Amino acid sequence: MVTKSKIKAELESILPKKNVLSAIEECYVYSQDGTNDVQSDVLPDVVVFPETIEEIQSIMRFANENRIPVVARGAGTNLVGACIPKRGGIIINFTKMDNILEINKTNMTAKVQAGVVVGKLQEEVDKFGLFFPPDPSNLKVSTVGGAIAQSAGGPKTFKYGTTKDYVLGLKVVLADGRIMETGVNTIKNATGYHLEQLFIGSEGTLGIVVEATLKLIPKPETTNVVMAYFDNVEDATNSVTNMIDKNVYPSTIDFMNRNTIKTVEKFYPCGLLTDKEAALIIEVDGLNISMETQIMRLETVLRLSGATDIVIARNKEEQEKIWTGRRASFGATAKLRPDVLTNDMIVPRENISKLVSGINEIAEKYRLIISIVGHIGDGNIHPQIALDLENSAEVENYEKAKKEFYALTLDLGGTLSAEHGIGLEKKEFLAQAVSPEALEYMKKIKMVFDPNNILNPDKIFDL
Amino acid sequence: MVTKSKIKAELESILPKKNVLSAIEECYVYSQDGTNDVQSDVLPDVVVFPETIEEIQSIMRFANENRIPVVARGAGTNLVGACIPKRGGIIINFTKMDNILEINKTNMTAKVQAGVVVGKLQEEVDKFGLFFPPDPSNLKVSTVGGAIAQSAGGPKTFKYGTTKDYVLGLKVVLADGRIMETGVNTIKNATGYHLEQLFIGSEGTLGIVVEATLKLIPKPETTNVVMAYFDNVEDATNSVTNMIDKNVYPSTIDFMNRNTIKTVEKFYPCGLLTDKEAALIIEVDGLNISMETQIMRLETVLRLSGATDIVIARNKEEQEKIWTGRRASFGATAKLRPDVLTNDMIVPRENISKLVSGINEIAEKYRLIISIVGHIGDGNIHPQIALDLENSAEVENYEKAKKEFYALTLDLGGTLSAEHGIGLEKKEFLAQAVSPEALEYMKKIKMVFDPNNILNPDKIFDL
Repeated sequence: MVTKSKIKAELESILPKKNVLSAIEECYVYSQDGTNDVQSDVLPDVVVFPETIEEIQSIMRFANENRIPVVARGAGTNLVGACIPKRGGIIINFTKMDNILEINKTNMTAKVQAGVVVGKLQEEVDKFGLFFPPDPSNLKVSTVGGAIAQSAGGPKTFKYGTTKDYVLGLKVVLADGRIMETGVNTIKNATGYHLEQLFIGSEGTLGIVVEATLKLIPKPETTNVVMAYFDNVEDATNSVTNMIDKNVYPSTIDFMNRNTIKTVEKFYPCGLLTDKEAALIIEVDGLNISMETQIMRLETVLRLSGATDIVIARNKEEQEKIWTGRRASFGATAKLRPDVLTNDMIVPRENISKLVSGINEIAEKYRLIISIVGHIGDGNIHPQIALDLENSAEVENYEKAKKEFYALTLDLGGTLSAEHGIGLEKKEFLAQAVSPEALEYMKKIKMVFDPNNILNPDKIFDL
Repeated sequence: MVTKSKIKAELESILPKKNVLSAIEECYVYSQDGTNDVQSDVLPDVVVFPETIEEIQSIMRFANENRIPVVARGAGTNLVGACIPKRGGIIINFTKMDNILEINKTNMTAKVQAGVVVGKLQEEVDKFGLFFPPDPSNLKVSTVGGAIAQSAGGPKTFKYGTTKDYVLGLKVVLADGRIMETGVNTIKNATGYHLEQLFIGSEGTLGIVVEATLKLIPKPETTNVVMAYFDNVEDATNSVTNMIDKNVYPSTIDFMNRNTIKTVEKFYPCGLLTDKEAALIIEVDGLNISMETQIMRLETVLRLSGATDIVIARNKEEQEKIWTGRRASFGATAKLRPDVLTNDMIVPRENISKLVSGINEIAEKYRLIISIVGHIGDGNIHPQIALDLENSAEVENYEKAKKEFYALTLDLGGTLSAEHGIGLEKKEFLAQAVSPEALEYMKKIKMVFDPNNILNPDKIFDL
């Protein structure tokens, strides 16, 4: 067992002193992440802010030799406790490794350090007429490394896929401090196993991703947004298939349920129709010339699918206004009670309305205040639960409800997490979601990459 | 060492007798695949045609206990010797496991047995208005299992990605005969490691993929094809970036060089302009309303990029005619000499013209007859070499040239294979293309899944 002062001394020999934090109040800040469900009762020994890969290699060599746990951290926005240093040790913060190393317009690729903020990357590639589609809702602060660790998605997944579809190659510092380059700089690769894909969603348990080569796509010429209200969730869900039938392929089909609509309108009045069971926010993109047709078809499809009210944005401001309602849902829900928790489940789209009604029933049973949003095109739902985390009865009810949410999701052919990850929060449920053999091989692969179990131990599964 | 007759007897106790072949002439047929570079000098002991997963499990249990090599085989179209039974043993042929188990329109997914022919799947999902984009050129016979094993792409990769982007979940029979289900039925997943991705491009070395759950996308409303000629390859390459700048995002940008054009026109006259250095075949898709604009913009971009001649298809027949020239290139090249070999390399697109001119120089140095086609949008080139495999001087020259092709590709930042795989043919070069650490971990993962090295041994790398 290495003492905190020894760890600190060693790290101060590796990094400039200013990049090594160890005061209790500083460690406290980094003992938590965006998660409310799981509280850390352990502080990290030291938090470091490396500026070079070599520093990270030295840190890992020291940590591996001395069996010190290491947690990589981007912006700490994750919602499942993946950044919580459950066993203390070292937190490697990527704030100072936030350089975009290359944007190559001809190749339509970008090479970035893991600490680059997703939104910043999107802004920069936009200047080249290019687009990096993964858009987790925290993209203004969250990092590419974090998106890779948590297999992040976002509203645009329906048309454009998730982070895994945009990672071509990775540079990884292994548990023993060596560097592994995996993947390629090209948009196709059939040269051995796709090791880079193993790191997507691995939550820092297999290696420290320090650089990523990313695929970019052309930026759509234009976008528009339509909002549609329905008297029931099933009509809203069915409208998606009807869109496909009419050759409308939206980039985003987001969803708010009745409680969400009411809660948003209560705190951020923006003219939402509060007597409706469901609202969809549909973004379409493409060539300017196609937009009128897309919107006309969309309107027809929505009417035929049972939409009672349709709002079509006529300009950028109106687009923003529609999105504001959806984006305000978390903040609005948070105003109902002292705290708010958000969750993440996904089912095959045909089962979305069953999932939504089931969640509502479970919430009612446990007297939970709940608003539901999600990416309905993907079958992905985020229940937002307003509660008082100091009130043990409420917390207990939530814990019970959560178990039932997950059981229902799995019964409906879905899985535990679509885009947030497993972390600490869902690991006790993992064995219900993946086959025993898959879990066995996940653990075996963990042991191959991290035989001393120092890389973010206790996350995803217990060894 | 188990004798052939023991293997045959055991397999005949597992499968109906008619599904077990062991006569020399039958085994000879299955000792080869689509590869011409690598000849097998070994016959399999037995070739089986299972009809159920249980049969495959029993075969694997027997093979694993007795250390008998097992090679999974789809249509045997692969070009790198991945299906060659280098150590004899058992070939598991998937011809009789070719059922499409489900096409789910609402979820936009399909569930298929590994032996389903890719083209058949495309036809069937088309009836639902859906689209499975991976389109290897052998798709009329090649199987989904083969596409997964070899990480297959095709002309449409530029816009739609490769097989790996469409695999959501797999059912795999492990080396010891157990079943592992990995992945999901949903289009997003952040629930543990993406084990299913490990099997893409693993060439049957990690497990026997028996079923796949695949992502589908909406079928584009319409497509059109344009052909453009250039006086040099660089102009042709640059035109791609210019297209992106003008918001034209083709699904396909295929390429033929001068030799290819001349060779095709010689044997299959279709009016190609034989004095041009490069021809591009560009397919665009999207809404009907957008097509005129896309074609107009494309024409403008091509002219500005230096295209000397542009052919725009006015109907389906003319589209087919343009594609015929490209598709005939392999057959035409084959007419030049008794045999033809095709290869597969990829570089970042900015280096395509260097790769093409470098390949031509190398071919000239070794007096090889070569035509070059490829998917220029991706940076992916397929040199087609006409030669006489009975002529040892020619073969020796080709072997030398091949080494230089690969060295050049790697120098230009590319990789050994974009969509054909490594198999036997490229494994001696793998260490030049991937980092020592990546190769080390590929081998470690192989040992985890297949400790007795019975699953397609000797492919991709030697242990």
